Amino acid sequence: MHIADIDTPAVLIDLDILERNLRAAQAYADTHGLKLRPHVKTHKLPRIARMQMDLGATGITAQKLGEAEAMADGGLTDIFLPYNILGQAKLDRLHALHERVKLSVIADSAVTVAGYAARFTDAAHPLTVLVECDTGAARCGVQDGHEALALARQIAAAPGLRFGGLMAYPKRGDLAGTSAWLAATIPLLAGAGLAPDVVSTGGTPDMFRAAEVGEATEHRPGTYVYNDRMQIGFGHGNWADCAMTVLTTVVSRPTATRAILDAGSKALAADTAPLPGHGRIVEYPEAIITALNEEHGMVDLTPCPRRPEIGERVRVIPNHACVVTNLFDHIHLIRGDVVDEVAAVTSRGRLG
Amino acid sequence: MHIADIDTPAVLIDLDILERNLRAAQAYADTHGLKLRPHVKTHKLPRIARMQMDLGATGITAQKLGEAEAMADGGLTDIFLPYNILGQAKLDRLHALHERVKLSVIADSAVTVAGYAARFTDAAHPLTVLVECDTGAARCGVQDGHEALALARQIAAAPGLRFGGLMAYPKRGDLAGTSAWLAATIPLLAGAGLAPDVVSTGGTPDMFRAAEVGEATEHRPGTYVYNDRMQIGFGHGNWADCAMTVLTTVVSRPTATRAILDAGSKALAADTAPLPGHGRIVEYPEAIITALNEEHGMVDLTPCPRRPEIGERVRVIPNHACVVTNLFDHIHLIRGDVVDEVAAVTSRGRLG
Repeated sequence: MHIADIDTPAVLIDLDILERNLRAAQAYADTHGLKLRPHVKTHKLPRIARMQMDLGATGITAQKLGEAEAMADGGLTDIFLPYNILGQAKLDRLHALHERVKLSVIADSAVTVAGYAARFTDAAHPLTVLVECDTGAARCGVQDGHEALALARQIAAAPGLRFGGLMAYPKRGDLAGTSAWLAATIPLLAGAGLAPDVVSTGGTPDMFRAAEVGEATEHRPGTYVYNDRMQIGFGHGNWADCAMTVLTTVVSRPTATRAILDAGSKALAADTAPLPGHGRIVEYPEAIITALNEEHGMVDLTPCPRRPEIGERVRVIPNHACVVTNLFDHIHLIRGDVVDEVAAVTSRGRLG
Repeated sequence: MHIADIDTPAVLIDLDILERNLRAAQAYADTHGLKLRPHVKTHKLPRIARMQMDLGATGITAQKLGEAEAMADGGLTDIFLPYNILGQAKLDRLHALHERVKLSVIADSAVTVAGYAARFTDAAHPLTVLVECDTGAARCGVQDGHEALALARQIAAAPGLRFGGLMAYPKRGDLAGTSAWLAATIPLLAGAGLAPDVVSTGGTPDMFRAAEVGEATEHRPGTYVYNDRMQIGFGHGNWADCAMTVLTTVVSRPTATRAILDAGSKALAADTAPLPGHGRIVEYPEAIITALNEEHGMVDLTPCPRRPEIGERVRVIPNHACVVTNLFDHIHLIRGDVVDEVAAVTSRGRLG
């Protein structure tokens, strides 16, 4: 099967670029003595997760239970789920997953820990729980070292739980802030006999500076596998590092300067980037995707020296690769112009 | 099954509100002598399309071939597909669909018409083609009456095609502009013996003013079935008219004024509304969903007189209902607090 045989809109992943991105991340981690625990939310494909493991990753990261289950189904055996898992239904699923793979999770509240402690009671096979720390990103996480210590103690006191360390999602561009936060917290834990085995950081934009957080033992980048306009806007990577494109057809040319693509917000998603427009058309890089309706992408061709015709197929680098993966049932993995595999995205559309 | 038995995040549709919205639209159309051809892109559910037909709709509208096919599978028999269908693969699917249902499509270029004319050649069973008109919305469509006439002639001259009329997606708030555009064009067509049988307009925000386009014979509203924050921002409907909510759990309360929901951009989508924030929390209407990560919704509780606890479940009216439908494999149709049906969204994630 050739790219020309794929109908549009469709997602293409260039395996050569993907492999280069995977190797670069692992090489950085190896050079700096960090473990790499890639985040699979971007690709949701066990095949790519296995490629990451083969290159030396210590395990993988999943962002929701359904994603972790799909990875276990795909043969992955060491999964970190940095999410507060709450409620009996999800705790039961978590327990079942814990029987199948080496699993670790996080908590940032006593409520979450109490839920784990009630469901996991086997001291011979404890669930590893890290404490999520808000080191500046203002998302989840305990606010200071004293809160971290209190949670670590609660975890350590539960027979069926094991305190695994600290996890943070650093504020982009402020690795020093995360480092300072961790440096203030770790001695408190160590003083209580709870020195963290693992200190896990995440994020693609700063991944090639991850070692500046000297306290970290592992890093969890996600988007780096494909890259996108958002990452490039943040200063990570170049167009040649973008492995994901959306193959689309020009369905209308209403005026000399306007083209309409058959990829709208249900194919490219409405996520914005620190660059104008909704995607980069590889063949017409001067064009601006000015707006998206659900099945239409509006393109301003004014700056373009040459312009596409109706029926022409073009490839679009999206603003945010991770959410595009979540919009398609199948992803086309390509080598050059040849389709290597049409891979099913099994963990999209699932609850939880 | 009760709402309490549904794990989060999940999409809920309140059938009482839905039915009220459906009836109001049909009543307006009936009162004003317009046919109603509801757009199914919002719900993608044959059951709701059948409810629309039972109330008096003349047929339905689908925005892509996969959506139309799913509706035919669901028993719908009169489908308008206002999209330029291009390429052999899609033309073959279109031809197969034409054998199953009463089908009409659009074209806005000679290229699109030529494709239809080559694939549809049976004068005894012609494909009905309307001309899409850009009456001000600056999306697809011919630019003036002369272009419309040229395309109508090309359609009428093809043995296997039938000229069906004009279709427009009016610019929001400018019905007068659409009316003037059509009033200037229709006499040109009539003078050539090609008076349009159907003049079709669309859009929810102006649906209760659709009759102001006196040239229109039918209207194609979509989002009105559920409504959302975007429509309310546009001035259409009230919170009590919003049939879709996303059921979500508060998974973290890192600070006194911050809550984190288990619904992020992969559940609520990043579409913006003419109101601040990413959704309205029904139980905490003063709260502001300030940002979305993929599986996290960040909430500022500062303005709230009372605040939710960890583990509490809340319902969020999303910014844009149509794209939320596209993110879930299943939709929960509810009557009060009881689940009436868990309906599969069969036409999401499909190519084309």
